[in-house]
Amino acid sequence: MAIINKKRGNYLEDFEPGQVFRHKGGKTVNAGLFNAFTDFSMTTNPLHKNAEYARFHGYDDLVVPPGLVMNVVFSQTVEDISENARANLEYINMRFGAPVYIGDTLEAETTIVGVQPSSKNNDRGVVHVSSVGRNQKGDVALAFERKVQVWKSDVNVNVESVKLETSPVVECEAFIPAYDASKKYATKAHLSNPDTYFEDFNASDVFEHSRGRLVTDEHIALTGQLDNTSQVHCNQFLIDQNPKKYIGGRLIVYGGVPFNLCLGLSCPDIADNSPADIVYTTGRHVGPIFAGDTVFASTEIRETRDFTGRDDLGLLAVTLRGHKFRDPKEGEEGPQKVDVFYLERELAVRRKSHYAS
Amino acid sequence: MAIINKKRGNYLEDFEPGQVFRHKGGKTVNAGLFNAFTDFSMTTNPLHKNAEYARFHGYDDLVVPPGLVMNVVFSQTVEDISENARANLEYINMRFGAPVYIGDTLEAETTIVGVQPSSKNNDRGVVHVSSVGRNQKGDVALAFERKVQVWKSDVNVNVESVKLETSPVVECEAFIPAYDASKKYATKAHLSNPDTYFEDFNASDVFEHSRGRLVTDEHIALTGQLDNTSQVHCNQFLIDQNPKKYIGGRLIVYGGVPFNLCLGLSCPDIADNSPADIVYTTGRHVGPIFAGDTVFASTEIRETRDFTGRDDLGLLAVTLRGHKFRDPKEGEEGPQKVDVFYLERELAVRRKSHYAS
Amino acid sequence: MAIINKKRGNYLEDFEPGQVFRHKGGKTVNAGLFNAFTDFSMTTNPLHKNAEYARFHGYDDLVVPPGLVMNVVFSQTVEDISENARANLEYINMRFGAPVYIGDTLEAETTIVGVQPSSKNNDRGVVHVSSVGRNQKGDVALAFERKVQVWKSDVNVNVESVKLETSPVVECEAFIPAYDASKKYATKAHLSNPDTYFEDFNASDVFEHSRGRLVTDEHIALTGQLDNTSQVHCNQFLIDQNPKKYIGGRLIVYGGVPFNLCLGLSCPDIADNSPADIVYTTGRHVGPIFAGDTVFASTEIRETRDFTGRDDLGLLAVTLRGHKFRDPKEGEEGPQKVDVFYLERELAVRRKSHYAS
Repeated sequence: MAIINKKRGNYLEDFEPGQVFRHKGGKTVNAGLFNAFTDFSMTTNPLHKNAEYARFHGYDDLVVPPGLVMNVVFSQTVEDISENARANLEYINMRFGAPVYIGDTLEAETTIVGVQPSSKNNDRGVVHVSSVGRNQKGDVALAFERKVQVWKSDVNVNVESVKLETSPVVECEAFIPAYDASKKYATKAHLSNPDTYFEDFNASDVFEHSRGRLVTDEHIALTGQLDNTSQVHCNQFLIDQNPKKYIGGRLIVYGGVPFNLCLGLSCPDIADNSPADIVYTTGRHVGPIFAGDTVFASTEIRETRDFTGRDDLGLLAVTLRGHKFRDPKEGEEGPQKVDVFYLERELAVRRKSHYAS
Repeated sequence: MAIINKKRGNYLEDFEPGQVFRHKGGKTVNAGLFNAFTDFSMTTNPLHKNAEYARFHGYDDLVVPPGLVMNVVFSQTVEDISENARANLEYINMRFGAPVYIGDTLEAETTIVGVQPSSKNNDRGVVHVSSVGRNQKGDVALAFERKVQVWKSDVNVNVESVKLETSPVVECEAFIPAYDASKKYATKAHLSNPDTYFEDFNASDVFEHSRGRLVTDEHIALTGQLDNTSQVHCNQFLIDQNPKKYIGGRLIVYGGVPFNLCLGLSCPDIADNSPADIVYTTGRHVGPIFAGDTVFASTEIRETRDFTGRDDLGLLAVTLRGHKFRDPKEGEEGPQKVDVFYLERELAVRRKSHYAS
Repeated sequence: MAIINKKRGNYLEDFEPGQVFRHKGGKTVNAGLFNAFTDFSMTTNPLHKNAEYARFHGYDDLVVPPGLVMNVVFSQTVEDISENARANLEYINMRFGAPVYIGDTLEAETTIVGVQPSSKNNDRGVVHVSSVGRNQKGDVALAFERKVQVWKSDVNVNVESVKLETSPVVECEAFIPAYDASKKYATKAHLSNPDTYFEDFNASDVFEHSRGRLVTDEHIALTGQLDNTSQVHCNQFLIDQNPKKYIGGRLIVYGGVPFNLCLGLSCPDIADNSPADIVYTTGRHVGPIFAGDTVFASTEIRETRDFTGRDDLGLLAVTLRGHKFRDPKEGEEGPQKVDVFYLERELAVRRKSHYAS
């Protein structure tokens, strides 16, 4: 009799630049998953709520929100890339392509771009990867790079610092239905916030979004529904055996949960009239979230730009930040704000001139 | 740089009789939402469980239960009408119309009927509204009035007591598929409780429904899935900063949750053979619900009536009550029953003579 | 005025061999239910994740996993058979038949096989039943027997030990799509674990599955979504009035929840390349699960056999065990493993020779 204890996932020494992982599973986005995540995020954009509105605006059906597209693709990469990670360091150049609808199936693939051992700690290093998610027609729905800090399996193995000369090139352009001048868009304008058209935004404005949302231990089920296999989100016994090893000594909320939630909390002020997110140039989790935290968000408008080739739209370059509060320490007055999420985001926004007049 | 802190919702002084709000969002009832709410309610009526049974009885598909129809429409009115409310005082003349199926999209509209400042408290008053929810074909699925106690934004603003001469007239008649004498209804009769036909009910009987259901912090996600934006249901930090301001000093469960649950708990005794709820003449939340409460229900049969134009049906006029228990105070023996919900309800019920023989 | 307090369900003295129950409700498996249960289980078999993969392998759509098929059929039998049970003793000869897809409706029927009063305790006895679940076309999707310990309603009633000479014969053969030699199965092989083909298994190997999953009070909603009406899973007030009467003095997790979870936890090592579960010859819950427990599983390969008539498949006879840990008592070192679930399981598994080369 053999006792077999299979570990899934790879370690630092298992990666080499140029290596390609075609990830397991794939995922059909069904109505249950859509319902759980879309409304968990507190998004208010009717494209994600109201199928009639979405079809009127040129989509085939309810549009899966960017926070869920990101989560479905990202989660598929976890077992191969970050099951044995210490931390996810950075999202880079995350771009949205084909729209995703309920019933679509997304499959994911990752190319290793670089491997760099830690100069301080012999037991870990950074892996730089490029991932892409495609739908059942082969269209790219999401492409992104990320850097992740991964444990070695054997600290004595020597790992060299190597990287590809350039990251793989992945074509990924956001789908935005064409503007139809004969269509009476204004007849549906009451369904979204009237003060979130491109003309309403000014560079350097900062929106403190008014809503907050408690995250409960529901995060465990949400993470499982994404097929995210990382044990630090759901294996309480594992944590309890060695709490000091784990951040906070508790089950940590999977980063995709506050990622999705911060996008949603910002929606009524920023994205109610956005047909699509275009790119997240950089992003990172700057603090952990645990069950019991109430998450808030703010958005700084960095730049307002024309949208090339589309008179009906503008482009906002913004910084989305997520925060929570911690109890005051001695000498501090009142709860202290703690940053948890940082995302540089570009999104298309409709012009009032074309859609609400 | 401007710091922008947008507040959504209106205050007492923002309302005037005759004003019409076409609410934001709209909502497509998808299978995920249906699953979460229908079974949360513990309803047993096969119209909400078994698509074959529903089609056999003349519906197009699984029927969205009344508690979910009410919640989807009501929640859309929250931001405009009651985001800044202190309490929802009364549901009035809530009538059901077109059946709602998975995939249908409901949009809501509200007319202000009256505004009355409080004679005791200068900071609040009552708004009386008439709301209607329509599906994508324009058919009315739900119409109701309600009275809600709303805060002023500025206590120094004078608000006059004004109202429309009459409430708006909204046509809304319950859809009940025609009786087909050639159909062998009895072949499906085993799927519902055999003792809940019209002939089984007697005026003045009181049913103490045997099942109870613990409400956990799942209420936060359920409420979010309805797009109910009120922060008192999900923003723990807000409550913690000033617990005395909020009922119970805790996140309060959105009233639509026990509304839905009480309907479901009563179902096996009352509504297993009901093709439709017709009207809730009046209803109110007489006590708050918090996570950790177990909710129970009872139904008093007030009247049994013929259903005009339908020999195959009867009409029950009942009072549905919800309750929970609290710990005994000194001198009390055992847990004490606390009323939480009151609803005067009229529902159509099949006659055994036509459906089970 | 009459106060009516209806109790649902039957007691030991209500059962007699040969009696047939056509259960209430029926259940349409919608996408919400599928999403909640499939991913709760942590299954990794792409047949349950990826509709394109499922169709490529000859199914019509995403395949409802065996743990959910079992739960949907089983739960329908609860009110009539085990609403008043003390314990579910054994699952026997549980066989899977027609595949179940989202949108299918399952109805259930149970024949009483035997009734045996307890020789020790006058207030209870064992009922042996045979249940079958059929889809809307009348095809058998699941057939099983079970033994359940049921309370008497009146301890003074004499109950005789009686049983049918033989259990009812129910035809139920697992559906497995035909092998198509012209199809390039290997092009999809990267979507499942590469080390879980029939050739990878050896009799007497034991797999300690690496993942564990915390069960939270989400179990209440999951159980409700199955229409399982037993109050010991959701009525906190009932338990609190008499905690000593109930196992653990707490809401107990419905057995179908760990049943489903143990199957899922074993999936990456055992069933990633399984087209169908065939039969569970015997199974039982050997320990209770409560909210807060982290569940783990292991699988012992008992036998590897050819699959009659199918060169492309093999058959694994395995024992699936579930366990959790309890705190050490005095003198014990570290957390102690506690068995919670035992299932003898036979499943079809693809051969690498036919599917991955």
